[in-house]
Amino acid sequence: MTLDLEFDDDGLLTVVAQDADTDEVLMVAHADRAAIERTLETGRAHYYSRSRDEHWQKGETSGHVQDVREVRVDCDGDAVLYRVAQTGGACHTGHRSCFYRRVDGDDDAMTATVVEEPVFDPDEVYD
Amino acid sequence: MTLDLEFDDDGLLTVVAQDADTDEVLMVAHADRAAIERTLETGRAHYYSRSRDEHWQKGETSGHVQDVREVRVDCDGDAVLYRVAQTGGACHTGHRSCFYRRVDGDDDAMTATVVEEPVFDPDEVYD
Repeated sequence: MTLDLEFDDDGLLTVVAQDADTDEVLMVAHADRAAIERTLETGRAHYYSRSRDEHWQKGETSGHVQDVREVRVDCDGDAVLYRVAQTGGACHTGHRSCFYRRVDGDDDAMTATVVEEPVFDPDEVYD
Repeated sequence: MTLDLEFDDDGLLTVVAQDADTDEVLMVAHADRAAIERTLETGRAHYYSRSRDEHWQKGETSGHVQDVREVRVDCDGDAVLYRVAQTGGACHTGHRSCFYRRVDGDDDAMTATVVEEPVFDPDEVYD
């Protein structure tokens, strides 16, 4: 059936990228309709950057592209899941996943602890 | 180290809930600081509903609670991952995951195909 997507006031929805081999959640970003269409057409993950206000293909700069095996959509059509084969790492910090820190509640404060090792050196990958 | 979270103008950030046993992505929702603190304190997943403008604990109505094994945060602090043990199903449609539809590009239109079976009858779970 034809798909109704629910974009926000900026024309965007949330995208979760998940590693199709390890099932690791790699990153959360945004996409507009054109980015999702381009992803389906090319088989490469495309997003829309709110901060830079432009389309981007993951890996354009780093070479760490995401080959999209499957796209899923959630029940209310406002979030999309890219199941991807990730080259290198998804995170600009050098980690495979952007979710490399664990959060703990410590009395009144929340703390973050790095629980994953980097898989590449960002200085060698990004100019 | 102390955690800096990046909330949007409404005081919210994106939460991805992932099944800690199967690694399936279950749902995407939102949380404010209080919801994350409550999640860490109680071990049960709490969110903030934009549409209803209130806090909610997953499973309050359905009994389909999420016991949170781990909370992760992404590199820029604006998305959080709840790794959960999911009772029943996460989706109000009766599916285990809200991402039960595959998206395909079909010429000019995108189509959605249901690729997962429901695991419960929503009529029996929700009043």
